[in-house]
Amino acid sequence: MEQKQQKHNIGAPPGELYYIGKERSDRVKISLIQYNENTFFENDYYDLSECLKNIKPDLIKWINIEGIHKLELVECIGKHFNIHPLTLEDIVHTESRPKFEDYDHYVISIMKMLYQDDIIHSEHLSILLFKDTVISFQEPSGGDAFDIVRKRIRQDKGRVRKMQSDYLAYALMDAVVDCYFKILEKFGEHIEQLDDEITDSPQREALIKLHDLKREMNFLRRKMWPVRELVNNMVRSETDLIHESNDAYLRDLQDHVNRLLDSIEGDREMLSSIMDIYLSSNSNKLNEAMKALTVISSIFIPVTFIVGVYGMNFKYMPEIDSPYAYGIVWVVMLSVMGGMALFFKRKHWW
Amino acid sequence: MEQKQQKHNIGAPPGELYYIGKERSDRVKISLIQYNENTFFENDYYDLSECLKNIKPDLIKWINIEGIHKLELVECIGKHFNIHPLTLEDIVHTESRPKFEDYDHYVISIMKMLYQDDIIHSEHLSILLFKDTVISFQEPSGGDAFDIVRKRIRQDKGRVRKMQSDYLAYALMDAVVDCYFKILEKFGEHIEQLDDEITDSPQREALIKLHDLKREMNFLRRKMWPVRELVNNMVRSETDLIHESNDAYLRDLQDHVNRLLDSIEGDREMLSSIMDIYLSSNSNKLNEAMKALTVISSIFIPVTFIVGVYGMNFKYMPEIDSPYAYGIVWVVMLSVMGGMALFFKRKHWW
Amino acid sequence: MEQKQQKHNIGAPPGELYYIGKERSDRVKISLIQYNENTFFENDYYDLSECLKNIKPDLIKWINIEGIHKLELVECIGKHFNIHPLTLEDIVHTESRPKFEDYDHYVISIMKMLYQDDIIHSEHLSILLFKDTVISFQEPSGGDAFDIVRKRIRQDKGRVRKMQSDYLAYALMDAVVDCYFKILEKFGEHIEQLDDEITDSPQREALIKLHDLKREMNFLRRKMWPVRELVNNMVRSETDLIHESNDAYLRDLQDHVNRLLDSIEGDREMLSSIMDIYLSSNSNKLNEAMKALTVISSIFIPVTFIVGVYGMNFKYMPEIDSPYAYGIVWVVMLSVMGGMALFFKRKHWW
Amino acid sequence: MEQKQQKHNIGAPPGELYYIGKERSDRVKISLIQYNENTFFENDYYDLSECLKNIKPDLIKWINIEGIHKLELVECIGKHFNIHPLTLEDIVHTESRPKFEDYDHYVISIMKMLYQDDIIHSEHLSILLFKDTVISFQEPSGGDAFDIVRKRIRQDKGRVRKMQSDYLAYALMDAVVDCYFKILEKFGEHIEQLDDEITDSPQREALIKLHDLKREMNFLRRKMWPVRELVNNMVRSETDLIHESNDAYLRDLQDHVNRLLDSIEGDREMLSSIMDIYLSSNSNKLNEAMKALTVISSIFIPVTFIVGVYGMNFKYMPEIDSPYAYGIVWVVMLSVMGGMALFFKRKHWW
Amino acid sequence: MEQKQQKHNIGAPPGELYYIGKERSDRVKISLIQYNENTFFENDYYDLSECLKNIKPDLIKWINIEGIHKLELVECIGKHFNIHPLTLEDIVHTESRPKFEDYDHYVISIMKMLYQDDIIHSEHLSILLFKDTVISFQEPSGGDAFDIVRKRIRQDKGRVRKMQSDYLAYALMDAVVDCYFKILEKFGEHIEQLDDEITDSPQREALIKLHDLKREMNFLRRKMWPVRELVNNMVRSETDLIHESNDAYLRDLQDHVNRLLDSIEGDREMLSSIMDIYLSSNSNKLNEAMKALTVISSIFIPVTFIVGVYGMNFKYMPEIDSPYAYGIVWVVMLSVMGGMALFFKRKHWW
Repeated sequence: MEQKQQKHNIGAPPGELYYIGKERSDRVKISLIQYNENTFFENDYYDLSECLKNIKPDLIKWINIEGIHKLELVECIGKHFNIHPLTLEDIVHTESRPKFEDYDHYVISIMKMLYQDDIIHSEHLSILLFKDTVISFQEPSGGDAFDIVRKRIRQDKGRVRKMQSDYLAYALMDAVVDCYFKILEKFGEHIEQLDDEITDSPQREALIKLHDLKREMNFLRRKMWPVRELVNNMVRSETDLIHESNDAYLRDLQDHVNRLLDSIEGDREMLSSIMDIYLSSNSNKLNEAMKALTVISSIFIPVTFIVGVYGMNFKYMPEIDSPYAYGIVWVVMLSVMGGMALFFKRKHWW
Repeated sequence: MEQKQQKHNIGAPPGELYYIGKERSDRVKISLIQYNENTFFENDYYDLSECLKNIKPDLIKWINIEGIHKLELVECIGKHFNIHPLTLEDIVHTESRPKFEDYDHYVISIMKMLYQDDIIHSEHLSILLFKDTVISFQEPSGGDAFDIVRKRIRQDKGRVRKMQSDYLAYALMDAVVDCYFKILEKFGEHIEQLDDEITDSPQREALIKLHDLKREMNFLRRKMWPVRELVNNMVRSETDLIHESNDAYLRDLQDHVNRLLDSIEGDREMLSSIMDIYLSSNSNKLNEAMKALTVISSIFIPVTFIVGVYGMNFKYMPEIDSPYAYGIVWVVMLSVMGGMALFFKRKHWW
Repeated sequence: MEQKQQKHNIGAPPGELYYIGKERSDRVKISLIQYNENTFFENDYYDLSECLKNIKPDLIKWINIEGIHKLELVECIGKHFNIHPLTLEDIVHTESRPKFEDYDHYVISIMKMLYQDDIIHSEHLSILLFKDTVISFQEPSGGDAFDIVRKRIRQDKGRVRKMQSDYLAYALMDAVVDCYFKILEKFGEHIEQLDDEITDSPQREALIKLHDLKREMNFLRRKMWPVRELVNNMVRSETDLIHESNDAYLRDLQDHVNRLLDSIEGDREMLSSIMDIYLSSNSNKLNEAMKALTVISSIFIPVTFIVGVYGMNFKYMPEIDSPYAYGIVWVVMLSVMGGMALFFKRKHWW
Repeated sequence: MEQKQQKHNIGAPPGELYYIGKERSDRVKISLIQYNENTFFENDYYDLSECLKNIKPDLIKWINIEGIHKLELVECIGKHFNIHPLTLEDIVHTESRPKFEDYDHYVISIMKMLYQDDIIHSEHLSILLFKDTVISFQEPSGGDAFDIVRKRIRQDKGRVRKMQSDYLAYALMDAVVDCYFKILEKFGEHIEQLDDEITDSPQREALIKLHDLKREMNFLRRKMWPVRELVNNMVRSETDLIHESNDAYLRDLQDHVNRLLDSIEGDREMLSSIMDIYLSSNSNKLNEAMKALTVISSIFIPVTFIVGVYGMNFKYMPEIDSPYAYGIVWVVMLSVMGGMALFFKRKHWW
Repeated sequence: MEQKQQKHNIGAPPGELYYIGKERSDRVKISLIQYNENTFFENDYYDLSECLKNIKPDLIKWINIEGIHKLELVECIGKHFNIHPLTLEDIVHTESRPKFEDYDHYVISIMKMLYQDDIIHSEHLSILLFKDTVISFQEPSGGDAFDIVRKRIRQDKGRVRKMQSDYLAYALMDAVVDCYFKILEKFGEHIEQLDDEITDSPQREALIKLHDLKREMNFLRRKMWPVRELVNNMVRSETDLIHESNDAYLRDLQDHVNRLLDSIEGDREMLSSIMDIYLSSNSNKLNEAMKALTVISSIFIPVTFIVGVYGMNFKYMPEIDSPYAYGIVWVVMLSVMGGMALFFKRKHWW
């Protein structure tokens, strides 16, 4: 899990661009895919003007920009496509919440791309849908959910080549949501594992692991919950950019997101149930130790007192001289010990 | 309870069919029931085209397909009945959430059929309502809730033969919800049993059982909650396929589902109350053990010290030689022991 | 509290009558009350047809049927008054949830009558309001909330004789809600009693009592919560059967139900607060026992070691022979004991 | 805090007057204040008819009735001002919930007046607003929130003399809400005090106090929450009796009530946080005691065994005769004790 | 964190001005900024009339008043700008809740400015938007969030000089919300720190710190939650004073506030998870101590009894005289000790 970054460009005038993600020196990569049902072009550029020159009017265009830390680039695109300054701000502020916004000539979905190596990374992602262009902005990263869509366009698999740009935008968002499922599946496995571990032998390490999983879950929840509102707003939106034929797909996306949230809530209950079992196992063990101590003490402390009595050095102790005394004391002591043992046996303490 | 399957056909283009349930090699069974108030035909087929040939135009038709893992079959039906690709996807994806969707010429309800042997199984189920045809898709399984409806049609019991296809669809859904009641009844009995067990003697095994029941309950909740929304959407839907005369039945179904959810919430509170009683019984027992130990230690430890004193071998110990010393020491020790016993008696510690 | 009955006539065609309450062999009692502002007739019948013969057209009629297990009778009434089969099902299914339904020529309120001997009994109750007839169905039972209304009609007390049938239906429902207050008052007293008991001396018996009260409260909540929705639906209903002049009364009923629910929520918080105090009292006692044990052990264990030292039988132990040794050892021991006592005194452990 | 009174005039016909508050024999006091911007009259009566005789048509009239247990009086007023029987019932039933109701020619606000000596008292209060008359009913009591309004009218302070009767009704309600602030302020101080007490030294007395504060808070919540709905209904009401010029004042009242509820919720969280700290302090102390006991036992029990060994009286014990044995045993014992002490020191147990 | 001030000017007529914040004797500072795209004037005054004289008609005016304890000043402004008395009351009552209100010729936003030295201070702040004037009232304080806006106006940075007065009001509110981020960032760091501390070594000091952080968080929540409603009301408001061109900015503000609340909820869950880990660490430690005690006692108590037996002084004790007895007893004792040690080893108690 990434560290919570609450940095916010405090004091900056609204709409001014500040990059507040991790420091980067990578070059920016612009990849342009243009297609219709029959043709398909794919090119990578490191320079915007060159890319814009190559745009063909009649095709569906998908411009993917890796590297939102290059603010001049984002500003250039903003100027060329007439994007509102606040939208640009949302694109480069890696802390913006997932949301859907409807401007007149474009709509924007802001999401988080999650991918996992040892920890879960969250990356800022913006998808802008214009009349026949989709522009996606992302931070350069190890995990790219979009490859799957790219491949489908190249190989003309599925419906994407036959549909409009709104379907492309949907396909990209669907790919991101698919990533969430992958993350949650892994997360669910970790929970199952922890559950087994704690049911077997509740250790302090398991507790720390539980604490970490809880934090991770809260991290995931914060990233995924707003996506529901995003998709709902998208479905309810009255923009002309999303055609009615796409409604069934958006509803499907809505459904997937609901399933995601169901799954997170299930995990949440699971974690709290594991905490419960941990705590009660602990209290069980305490009981066990306590009972063991009580039984042993109760059996030996009284008889230790008895042997102490006859270890006293008084001159006048009549029992001492009797030849049967030793035997009698043993009998008494064994009775006391047996009585105690029986008493606790009856109480089912051992 | 089944294992949580979060598998999702990640990366597949939306609307493309992937079967993600258990691997199966069974043949597919297609059963066709056709009826009106006067006539009734029932046939089983293993081949779709044959089945479609035998369809009679003026009757209500119910096609039940067992085995959604045969994707070609589902695709064939989809083509023949003009079903939207995303609907087909929902039919074969055994992980889809329960939902109601209204397409132009058909509506679909997706539910989970639950049945129980030692664990609770959940099976994916889709009911499509066309103008005078109902198509139901299910995984082949041990428990079939539809038998009851089949029997009623055969024997012309109840209202089903006199009504339209929408009533048939309702009857099928009602049969599924009836199954849920059976499951919950059994589940309630397990809870009652656990309650008795834990009130009598709280053991660690009971805790594990409680944990399992909690997981099972979460499983059931996840399956049943969306059904409420499903039925609500169905009632509110403005499709022509469901006639007004059916409204009372749908409201009745709504009512049953609400009763289900009431019952689940009751079980949930029951389980949390059992957890509470388990924990406090445990803490009670700890108290008891602690008190026993404290009483016994307090009675014997001081007197053991006293006998120790007179077990010392000092040359010069004036008390040792006195003939009354032994008697006096006994008196002192008995007073100490009696005092302690009295003290704890007063505190109601035993 | 009654046992939770989740039985449901699984597999029965919807709208077919099944009685699923307790087995009964009692005869059915039909009582007919007819009145207007000036006249009043009251008769009991054991036969429906006879009853129907005696109905006078111009009066307000109240037919009360005790014994819904006689299905033929209910069906007869259903036919005579043209009642929807699903309504009849709701009338005889003692497990139906409280609800209000508006059919064209009648409205129905389904409620639970609660009465208490040592446990709280819940009985199924249906009130149907026709143009100038009210039909009420109930299980034969010990407690009858309707007596109060009957008496008021007979003695022409209150407003009931001057009003229409809708007021009668309201009066019956109000009588049932009044019963709930009686139950909750008793319940509140039990909670107060338990609170005192647990604050004084938290015992395991109190815990079991608390557990039982919690279950009882959940039982009551499940019965009373839906009544709120029932009354709300009734107020919002646009049926012609309920006149506007009755609105104030319905709002008053709504108010009473809200007060009921407030009171239940108050009880709920009370119970959870009692649980808290029980648990913390327990942990207090454990602390007390632990401290007592620690103090006593800490005082005596070190000195018991010291006396043990001089009980050793070594040939060469220089201290043994000194005439002051015994005195010195006592001084040392008393210092140790006093020091320990002082130390724990300072820590306020006793 | 007053005892929870759930008494309800069970079985009484709706709209019939029953007084169910405390038994009282006090005389009833009727005070009539009449004013406009220029004139002002104030009189106390013990007889209604006399009061009504003195009413002057052109002035704003405020009739305050202390003593709602005199049912004849309330009925007389009801007849004179044409008040609905259910309103009269709400006026005299001291258990009615706070609510706002809009009848045609008057509106009524029912509230609770809270005042505190050692416990918090709740008194039933009704404010009826007619065209140019306000009638307020209250139980005779020690604390009167209305004095402040009376004084303002007398001295022509603030706006009240310049405004209509609706402003007067608002001013009265505002005065009642001001009382709530006073109560909550005191309550908040008690919580602060308890917080300090428990953070310093968690004792059982503090626990009982916490339990009492919790009950008191639930009592306050039950009284204050419905006031929010009351004021909301008042703001949304479309009655002609409340002029638009009064809207800002009502919104201000709404605001105050929201602040009240914020404050209660804050107190609630405070109390639960105090409970948490109490419980964990307790568990801390248990840990401390346990560690002390374990350290002392671990240090002395092993060496007590060693000295026991050489206290045995066997004839043949080679070590006994060695002149160095005693010294060696001391060395061994000190090493064991030191080892144990060091071990626990390392574990930071002391 | 400041102390909770629940003071409320009880009994004051509504709309009358009372200052209830901290006592102050500072002079009041009035700063007037006037600008349009081309010109810019900034002046500080200590006298209102002088300030009003210098107002230039065609410019956007921002009057910032530091020191709302000078009631005459506030009243003067109120008269000059025709502000409703209740608005004035809200401006000077430092306890008013954050809210947005729409009067005919102006709108007002009441917020809290938060700043932090060792504790978090909350200061009352009101922003009034007139046609081309913004008036802001604040308590004189150390932290001024407005400096950033002032600087932007002076240096003509960002959009503010090009826009209307509504943008200025937005910019001020945005600056306040930015302050909240700063506070929450610091707060989040404290939580992280506490988390590390408690995971390492759970001490009582950490508990107190946790308790304090919880109180601080409740303080922040109470200040920030109402801001959401404020901004929502502002967005939904139909006032002419806020132009449509400003909508995107307001939605952006809404977004920031939602992010704030997300972050607070995250912190809340974090704190409760830390509490859990503290409690379970504590119970872990108790277990450890208990086990240590039980193991040591179980090993030494039985053998101490054995050595006690042979310390008895009976005349007739056959074993005493045997030359092998001493050796045999050692063997027996070592077996008992080894057996016990093995037993607990098997149970993984050490």
